[in-house]
Amino acid sequence: MMTSDARWLNYVRAERSGVSHRHRLDPPDPEPECPVAIRVSVGPAVFADRVSCYYTTGDVEPQGCRGVPTPGSSVVEAVPLGSVWDSLFWGYVEEWSALLPPQAAGTLVRYRIEAWSQRHGTSYWASEIVGTAPPSGDDADDGQPGYPYVRSLGYDFALTFLRRPRTFAYAVDHHRTPLWLRDALIYHIFVDRFHPGSGRSFAHADSLMGFYGGTLAGIIEQLDYIAGLGVNVLWLSPIFPSPSHHGYDATRYDDIEPRLGDLTTFRSLVDAAHQRGMRVLLDYTVNHISRQHPVFQDVLRDPASPYRAWFRFTHYPDRYASFFGVNELPQVDCDHPAARQSMLEAACFWLEQGVDGFRLDYAPGPSHAFWAAFRLATRAVRADGVGIGEAIESADTLQTYLGRFDGCLDFLLLQALRRFFIFGELSVSQFAAFLHRHFRAFPADFVLPSFLDNHDMNRFLWSVRGDVRRLKLAALCQYTLPPPPVLYYGTEVGLSQHRDVRYYDGTGHPEESRLPMLWGDTQNQDLLHFYQRLGVLRRATVAVWRGRRHSVVVDDRYGHYVYCCQALDDEQWLVGLNNSADRALLALPPGSWELRLATETADWQGELLVLPPYGGAILQQRR
Amino acid sequence: MMTSDARWLNYVRAERSGVSHRHRLDPPDPEPECPVAIRVSVGPAVFADRVSCYYTTGDVEPQGCRGVPTPGSSVVEAVPLGSVWDSLFWGYVEEWSALLPPQAAGTLVRYRIEAWSQRHGTSYWASEIVGTAPPSGDDADDGQPGYPYVRSLGYDFALTFLRRPRTFAYAVDHHRTPLWLRDALIYHIFVDRFHPGSGRSFAHADSLMGFYGGTLAGIIEQLDYIAGLGVNVLWLSPIFPSPSHHGYDATRYDDIEPRLGDLTTFRSLVDAAHQRGMRVLLDYTVNHISRQHPVFQDVLRDPASPYRAWFRFTHYPDRYASFFGVNELPQVDCDHPAARQSMLEAACFWLEQGVDGFRLDYAPGPSHAFWAAFRLATRAVRADGVGIGEAIESADTLQTYLGRFDGCLDFLLLQALRRFFIFGELSVSQFAAFLHRHFRAFPADFVLPSFLDNHDMNRFLWSVRGDVRRLKLAALCQYTLPPPPVLYYGTEVGLSQHRDVRYYDGTGHPEESRLPMLWGDTQNQDLLHFYQRLGVLRRATVAVWRGRRHSVVVDDRYGHYVYCCQALDDEQWLVGLNNSADRALLALPPGSWELRLATETADWQGELLVLPPYGGAILQQRR
Repeated sequence: MMTSDARWLNYVRAERSGVSHRHRLDPPDPEPECPVAIRVSVGPAVFADRVSCYYTTGDVEPQGCRGVPTPGSSVVEAVPLGSVWDSLFWGYVEEWSALLPPQAAGTLVRYRIEAWSQRHGTSYWASEIVGTAPPSGDDADDGQPGYPYVRSLGYDFALTFLRRPRTFAYAVDHHRTPLWLRDALIYHIFVDRFHPGSGRSFAHADSLMGFYGGTLAGIIEQLDYIAGLGVNVLWLSPIFPSPSHHGYDATRYDDIEPRLGDLTTFRSLVDAAHQRGMRVLLDYTVNHISRQHPVFQDVLRDPASPYRAWFRFTHYPDRYASFFGVNELPQVDCDHPAARQSMLEAACFWLEQGVDGFRLDYAPGPSHAFWAAFRLATRAVRADGVGIGEAIESADTLQTYLGRFDGCLDFLLLQALRRFFIFGELSVSQFAAFLHRHFRAFPADFVLPSFLDNHDMNRFLWSVRGDVRRLKLAALCQYTLPPPPVLYYGTEVGLSQHRDVRYYDGTGHPEESRLPMLWGDTQNQDLLHFYQRLGVLRRATVAVWRGRRHSVVVDDRYGHYVYCCQALDDEQWLVGLNNSADRALLALPPGSWELRLATETADWQGELLVLPPYGGAILQQRR
Repeated sequence: MMTSDARWLNYVRAERSGVSHRHRLDPPDPEPECPVAIRVSVGPAVFADRVSCYYTTGDVEPQGCRGVPTPGSSVVEAVPLGSVWDSLFWGYVEEWSALLPPQAAGTLVRYRIEAWSQRHGTSYWASEIVGTAPPSGDDADDGQPGYPYVRSLGYDFALTFLRRPRTFAYAVDHHRTPLWLRDALIYHIFVDRFHPGSGRSFAHADSLMGFYGGTLAGIIEQLDYIAGLGVNVLWLSPIFPSPSHHGYDATRYDDIEPRLGDLTTFRSLVDAAHQRGMRVLLDYTVNHISRQHPVFQDVLRDPASPYRAWFRFTHYPDRYASFFGVNELPQVDCDHPAARQSMLEAACFWLEQGVDGFRLDYAPGPSHAFWAAFRLATRAVRADGVGIGEAIESADTLQTYLGRFDGCLDFLLLQALRRFFIFGELSVSQFAAFLHRHFRAFPADFVLPSFLDNHDMNRFLWSVRGDVRRLKLAALCQYTLPPPPVLYYGTEVGLSQHRDVRYYDGTGHPEESRLPMLWGDTQNQDLLHFYQRLGVLRRATVAVWRGRRHSVVVDDRYGHYVYCCQALDDEQWLVGLNNSADRALLALPPGSWELRLATETADWQGELLVLPPYGGAILQQRR
């Protein structure tokens, strides 16, 4: 039994023992003039004969108690749907549903859920526990009513997973995911490590945590290079003032880190990108800020600071909620009205500067209620601006972000791609079954960009010990799947690492995957050329890969995988993958096929496609 | 993490990794002229683009492969319903549904389910893994196709939980649970220990595993005593020839164990019972027989015995599937046509002798397909004969026995009653929540008799260290809940134990709970009188306790629990329980209440009901 199983069980039990909502709405992304059913589960620890949902539609917190709303709030009584046996808990979970009335477009509906008993005289509040990564426990022991009941059922570990009663929220709107995001090919730039610009070289930093001198101006200079990869969206790592090389610890959100450039340069970058038909996404961290942020420094200096309530102190001034316990990264309570307002205003400011949206760092940190407000606020400024969450979560949890984000980075697909192409932990049939089910699990309106690696893990090329054939093979697959691909800077020219991210100790040193970009002669030109052709092809055929998709060859024994995709016009394309160290002979379906792209070579022998070891090819049906 | 968690997780993973049906039918108990939807889950280990269901309606096994039925079988193609994320597995489970056509009453529909892939060229069969108690693994390693796939996902323990492909079956009929079962008050007699009869005393056996001399004639002599308890159903422990004191190891099924009596005496017992309006249930073990049974002895003597296929030898003649690994109890393969026929004929024989039904020992042993055939065969002989399963299973598994049994012994309620009244492991609110949900989880047509103890566990009175007050309190609750109560012989006169069932070693010695019945002066007359009044009251008010039920007082702090029941005529009854060592003052709802029965005393102080420590009372609304 893995420890993670025990953690998972305790987490699920803690959640289901009490009153849990888990953001289950029907419809999941409410539209105007449509009632919304709120689903509530009441676990074995809770005795309740009433479930009340208090809500507001103005900018105030919903309040009430035992079925009676406070003035300004409204209440809806839930109806019981029946009980479901839960064998993990060895008990019944009762399901309830409350129907909230339709609202006009632009309404933020805030709500709280109380399960209570007239006769028993107690009440229990739905708390927000979502996801597979239990919260760090900073705010666990604050007297929430569920805890003693959980403990009485014998699950003591549950403590750290519980939270205080929560306000939930959803946005009522007509907003849909902009089509440009579905057509995206995203280039992910770690700004300090990409290009110094103006003929300068990278600085020689003392360590990988130092500054290498990448700048916004350097990016502008390389926009043609990037465009040559077929890229139409830039994702920049955080560019706000910050003491670190990565920038995920901002000291303000309304300016540019001087090492990287200034607002003028930034606007030039956005303009230059837009002129090339390229969108720009910023990396925005709402969950935490730098300890050096003036707001937090003010709190440390002044116990009466108005900002103190933006944070969650357990013992002022030295103990407070922080990102995974890192003191340098105090966590912001984004449900605090002023903190929320500040974070929303910063986002709107950047949209007004011309950016096209955000990659939202550690999205499970802030509440769903915050993200609902974020969606309304940002869409009001920019109707086609997007938000993409970074959420390492299960598929059912990702689905709760419908209507909050336009999509999430696809860590589930990442896991499958790496298990199949790097570690050999999935057979072809398991990989194919995963893809088949995964792409059907989300509505088309929820975009899950694919990636092979990022700045927090070993680069793909490092993980396959520099075997460029295997990188090309995985990329060929990535670019011929439905979701928009993300290309992590340097991957296309063979950038790898010196050491494993876990070289030093068990905690990991992700900086290893952030080495400076290769320029000039150090670039692998063959790989670059492949990525350029692949990117151009992807852009031209994006409708094909989003079309009907079926498996043609699924061969676990030899590691062969062939799939066929069909656009609306019935044009057929084939992708052949040979995920093995032997040459492959693949029987193609009847028809006349034309080779459009191969990782290295691809030949025909009669009706057989011949692929070299770890080779792949894209073929088009001849008309 | 408890070991049972690890076992449970491995079991669930083994089941869900492959193709699983879990007897999910819609409707769950098919009627004539109604199509039946078969639900199938296809787990992460399986790549399939087709799911086929082969079926027959004659008395033959369904056969087929990759969508093509063999002659005599038919096929229905399932349609995919979509995928559900399973976080325990960290993967998707695909749901399919096949619609089998309507059939005439009396039809046994047998079916097998294959998930397969035209392109991939493989097939996987749905195996039968049901319940929370994983099978012992006797037949686990017989080359079932699912195993390597499960192992490749990293769950090695899964091996012991997998089985070979299975034939499922359901019975199409109009059969409903006879109303007499819902009105039952059942007396559970362990025959060797109840009454020797004819003025004889119990024999002095060497050990509790010896023979004490109880007889059928002894039971006949005491029918008036039993009737005085309000009892209207007798459940006799096994009476077939057997070498043991308990009889769960029969050597034949068409006669009476000579120590207990003969067929004539048995018929007299049935007649005498029926004359008093009492039904008779036999305890019938289909899953296993005695090693001394002539059929098994024939197999041991003769490798070519026609009976050899009735058993599952892994190494003839010394290794074979047996009940929990006990060699003396070889397991019968009740899916073998001749074995099945023999077991069905024996049941019908006893129905023809006048018995009213069966308590079916270790019901999860034989397949659901067997029990579907059992229902059809026995109902054909006796339209109001019942079958009650002994199944220590989760609620969702119990629900799969709808249409197979008329109900199951309620081990879930047993657990809740003992945790609340004996061990203090449930608070009042947890107990009340359990009852509320549990009684709504099953259709009225599925009867779950309640009990406080049985012949396999410590008697209730022993567990509360002889505190008769607490036994009375639990009985007062048991008799005022909806399901028919079972009274285990001797409970009503204070029969307890010498030692704990776990006195000798860790494995348990259930014989401790099978001491000879107390007769004469050794009986606790006060307790007996209480049980007599309680039984008579239960019989007179059964419609009340099956009516609308709600909690009036749920007090975790003081251990007070009051509930109100209402029959169709709106007559209200109250039950007050004081599960604490202190005197209780219980506020009654407005109205005029009349005391109908108290465990000891019950007084009024103004509008308060006063109950002594561990006291309880039943009150009726005065009209």
